[in-house]
Amino acid sequence: MPILNAFYAQSGGVTSVINASACGVIETARKHPDRIGRLYAGRNGIIGALTEELIDTGAEPAEAIAALRTTPSGAFGSCRYKLKSLEKNRREYERLIEVFKAHGIGYFFYNGGGDSADTCFKVSQLSQSMGYALQAIHVPKTIDNDLPLTDCCPGFGSVAKYTAVSLRECALDVASMMDTSTKVFVMEVMGRHAGWIAASAGLAGVGRDDAPHVILFPERVFDAEAFLERVRQTVERVGYCVVAASEGIKYADGTFVADAHAGTDAFGHTQLGGVAPALAGLVRGKLNLKTHWAMPDYLQRSARHIASKTDLDQALAVGKAAVELALAGANAVMPVIRRTADSPYRWKIETAQLDAIANREKRLPKSFITRDGFHITAAARKYLAPLIRGEAPPPYGRDGLPEYVTLKNAAVKKKLPAFDLA
Amino acid sequence: MPILNAFYAQSGGVTSVINASACGVIETARKHPDRIGRLYAGRNGIIGALTEELIDTGAEPAEAIAALRTTPSGAFGSCRYKLKSLEKNRREYERLIEVFKAHGIGYFFYNGGGDSADTCFKVSQLSQSMGYALQAIHVPKTIDNDLPLTDCCPGFGSVAKYTAVSLRECALDVASMMDTSTKVFVMEVMGRHAGWIAASAGLAGVGRDDAPHVILFPERVFDAEAFLERVRQTVERVGYCVVAASEGIKYADGTFVADAHAGTDAFGHTQLGGVAPALAGLVRGKLNLKTHWAMPDYLQRSARHIASKTDLDQALAVGKAAVELALAGANAVMPVIRRTADSPYRWKIETAQLDAIANREKRLPKSFITRDGFHITAAARKYLAPLIRGEAPPPYGRDGLPEYVTLKNAAVKKKLPAFDLA
Repeated sequence: MPILNAFYAQSGGVTSVINASACGVIETARKHPDRIGRLYAGRNGIIGALTEELIDTGAEPAEAIAALRTTPSGAFGSCRYKLKSLEKNRREYERLIEVFKAHGIGYFFYNGGGDSADTCFKVSQLSQSMGYALQAIHVPKTIDNDLPLTDCCPGFGSVAKYTAVSLRECALDVASMMDTSTKVFVMEVMGRHAGWIAASAGLAGVGRDDAPHVILFPERVFDAEAFLERVRQTVERVGYCVVAASEGIKYADGTFVADAHAGTDAFGHTQLGGVAPALAGLVRGKLNLKTHWAMPDYLQRSARHIASKTDLDQALAVGKAAVELALAGANAVMPVIRRTADSPYRWKIETAQLDAIANREKRLPKSFITRDGFHITAAARKYLAPLIRGEAPPPYGRDGLPEYVTLKNAAVKKKLPAFDLA
Repeated sequence: MPILNAFYAQSGGVTSVINASACGVIETARKHPDRIGRLYAGRNGIIGALTEELIDTGAEPAEAIAALRTTPSGAFGSCRYKLKSLEKNRREYERLIEVFKAHGIGYFFYNGGGDSADTCFKVSQLSQSMGYALQAIHVPKTIDNDLPLTDCCPGFGSVAKYTAVSLRECALDVASMMDTSTKVFVMEVMGRHAGWIAASAGLAGVGRDDAPHVILFPERVFDAEAFLERVRQTVERVGYCVVAASEGIKYADGTFVADAHAGTDAFGHTQLGGVAPALAGLVRGKLNLKTHWAMPDYLQRSARHIASKTDLDQALAVGKAAVELALAGANAVMPVIRRTADSPYRWKIETAQLDAIANREKRLPKSFITRDGFHITAAARKYLAPLIRGEAPPPYGRDGLPEYVTLKNAAVKKKLPAFDLA
């Protein structure tokens, strides 16, 4: 077998465990020097491949690569840069193959969500049609948990854990002061199209009166009257009400709730929206209850300090499996997580064909949302519960801060003319 | 010595370690059954004393009390209820003494910030003038770190750690995607009058180009032009800019920045302000840069999962010291933290007189803010660094969530007529 070089890139929104997948790819590749020569990483994702800004991962010592397990966000840089159809972006696709050819790259590992799975598939197709031998393997990653065919997506379990833990904590805060202070607390969570993260907030409580009392999913139309009535009833019964709201909830006419309530300030600037302040404003305006709200934004997807051990293990495993698949001759595939038992939770890595994954979003099943639309069902709990299990804290320095690694990210000498990004 | 009962109450905004102070009080009191009979807690703080809603802490097993070390927020309930001067609220002060008398309470432990220190002092004064023997001891607590005479305030170190850790994490996120996504990220932190929490964000980075690149303190007038110029320069030099902003920053005319930018939405509701969205709107409007913002709100003060060990130790210590002071005959005092060395950090508990504490806010010293007003100095680092050191994670259940204790909070039989809160 010839020795081929490999290319790895991170794509789209980063997570607290995407670097663990990078670690899985790199450590596994290093075990096969007879098959894999150099492993390059794209600086800022696929853009690094287009502009030939390659990083030599071989310059990183083993300890630095191992430390990727405990370092959040994208160690090589990621990007939002979607390659569309082969027709529309043919120039870019061809450039990728050119760069791969120039650097002897026979393995392409692309670590991202639905869009990058699509790109990965198209790169594989084009390389075949151009007669260039390339094995393209997609490594799943997305906090949105919306990839099809896999039981869950690396990155999601840690956001889910962050969300459930934070909600449990702030609910205790609200509960302890409800008589004289905040009665309604709204926590906004990510997930513009799918309510997986919102659903994970539901794990914070168990009993009927535990927080969160109301969950708002993008899968359900937002009905302000019904919402306000539920909040009112909850405050009456429990004394306070904690709401977890997905950023993506919409009114019946399709307007995002965040946008509907965006206003203009005295300076003429558009108020940057947010579901949480919009809902808090509604509650205060209509129910005259003291409200507070939180919007963790990027904090939720970078919170490596509270990552899920299950999620971390799976992120590592898909990275490792991607390399093993490549060495076994696979192409246009993605390692996926298959759940084999709920209790005790067991999972294994299987393989899915990329043509069945690209551009298909997995939204929250109807059976996961209660009939009233405001909470998760037992089926949702059974699915979600294992994903937040286990702790995997990063090492802490004597300064009390997590020790996150910064790689050297040494540049590889360019061999091709410059390429202008469209 | 006679056996007297004791009363403990939590006051004002809760913290992730105020229950550790409760634990210190209760465990220490239990070691002295020859001096302290029953230890009652106020349900929802001082309101519980006024309404005679006392909780019998004796009904809690030792394990539950020990678990208060690792449980955030107020286990007995807290409240925002300020007793003003003896003249204005004489009826309430007298009622407190009545309730204490009815339940044989000779020790009053009040766990709070500046306002409660004031109340504690007045209760002590009134009991003396009424000839009722009462020892009133204040137990310091505030995330705002603004109590005088003590080196720091229990509750602050943990918020500081949460802030520094979260900022370090989300800055990695922004840095990894700056070329194609967010360029400016604003994280809002608590501290309406004092910039201690904003300052703690500064610990997240060390080098000149590390995040946070800009810190906005309530101690400095907010100058939009200078701020925007600093953000612009930072993005130009570093590629992105992370801002930590205190909720309390004001324009030169005294308007809170959050209020100045509050608008009205299409439904006629006032947009609930926030400094972070206001600043993000400014940056987007004036610099046309992609911005994101976060507002952790209560998440920051309830985040027991990332508490500082130093803070936890101090919260426990002041609780223990309060009881020891009472047993030694002290009255109208507060145990305070005295720093005896910076490196290695050492501290001990001393005693301060309450009349010197009440209603005095300790703001960030001028020497802690750089001349340009946008960062912390070496002196600030020296002060802040030890306070976030050490980890003290709570126990986690098999479900992957922190195990926080819920007390029985058994009611004590009332002996007095009802009392209407004003």
